[in-house]
Amino acid sequence: MEYFVPPLETLVDSFASLPGIGRKTARRLAFHVLNSSTEEAQRFADAIVNAKKLVKYCKICQNITDTDVCALCSNEKRNKSVICVTESPKDVISIENTHEYNGLYHVLHGAISPMDDIGPKDLKIVELLERLKDGTVNEVIMATNPTIEGEATAMYIAKLIKPLGVKVTRIANGVPVGGDLEYADQVTLTKAIEGRQEM
Amino acid sequence: MEYFVPPLETLVDSFASLPGIGRKTARRLAFHVLNSSTEEAQRFADAIVNAKKLVKYCKICQNITDTDVCALCSNEKRNKSVICVTESPKDVISIENTHEYNGLYHVLHGAISPMDDIGPKDLKIVELLERLKDGTVNEVIMATNPTIEGEATAMYIAKLIKPLGVKVTRIANGVPVGGDLEYADQVTLTKAIEGRQEM
Repeated sequence: MEYFVPPLETLVDSFASLPGIGRKTARRLAFHVLNSSTEEAQRFADAIVNAKKLVKYCKICQNITDTDVCALCSNEKRNKSVICVTESPKDVISIENTHEYNGLYHVLHGAISPMDDIGPKDLKIVELLERLKDGTVNEVIMATNPTIEGEATAMYIAKLIKPLGVKVTRIANGVPVGGDLEYADQVTLTKAIEGRQEM
Repeated sequence: MEYFVPPLETLVDSFASLPGIGRKTARRLAFHVLNSSTEEAQRFADAIVNAKKLVKYCKICQNITDTDVCALCSNEKRNKSVICVTESPKDVISIENTHEYNGLYHVLHGAISPMDDIGPKDLKIVELLERLKDGTVNEVIMATNPTIEGEATAMYIAKLIKPLGVKVTRIANGVPVGGDLEYADQVTLTKAIEGRQEM
């Protein structure tokens, strides 16, 4: 009964259901929509429906796309001999933003997590193994998160891939650039020392 | 070209156009929509369109409502002899949340601001004066913002109402409860001293 106006309350509820949006922010956003033009509101509503309707998984790398094969997989300039395996499409964006990697990707859509009842079968692992069969790929970079789940997933997949004669690598653990040694946790610091490289 | 997926980019753009939502947050919200069910996404889209379509101004107090006369104006338990004048519907919610005020409201939908080319004619002032004609109302509380525009609007309207024999009051200026005198600005502190009350 906060507003006495059901359609507005419904909109506030919708905004408030988004992650990181509290009721006060939701209210501010709802009023912004009310004050925008009907066309703008319609465009926003269409954007939501269309994103949900048109975005699907690339049939090769399982990354999100609105075409059968995504822009990365169909890009002739990418190096087809390396596959970088990530947990989510967001990680692909992060890696792409470095502009340093020119290979292909494979998105698992999750990580093995017995606590959340997510097993290997829930991930796009079969699709990854399928891609290694024709011998084009000679390196798979495991870029799952440096968490217990991410590490377990990386190890599980590495065990499956090694027998196929494909090199499997893991992204480096260490202190973040611009970070402060004083605030680095012990495990990270240990990994940073273990992974030291000659200068 | 951040995502290579136009429908997703459009949705991120839509979220990013909301006040206080940056591109990173917009991306997180867009992915949340992608990961939600089709029904949830549709409900969100409908909420936007419906809020815009169904919410209108109450024909008495000009507050937002989805009926001809709002829930506050049609509530028989409210004190019909006092009208609290605010700049926006959000201010009505704030005052309602105090649970201390039991009168009616009148929403101006703005404040006089020559800089933004907003004059008295752009506000719901005629509608306010109309409500004072039948003699039911004996006090009008000016609760416009304590800004230059809000003060100017309050003074302008007070001048129009006083000749009608209706009492006009202004909400108090002073130090906010829980605030610190040290951080109160000079004008606020001066107003607080001027407005002191016997204990």
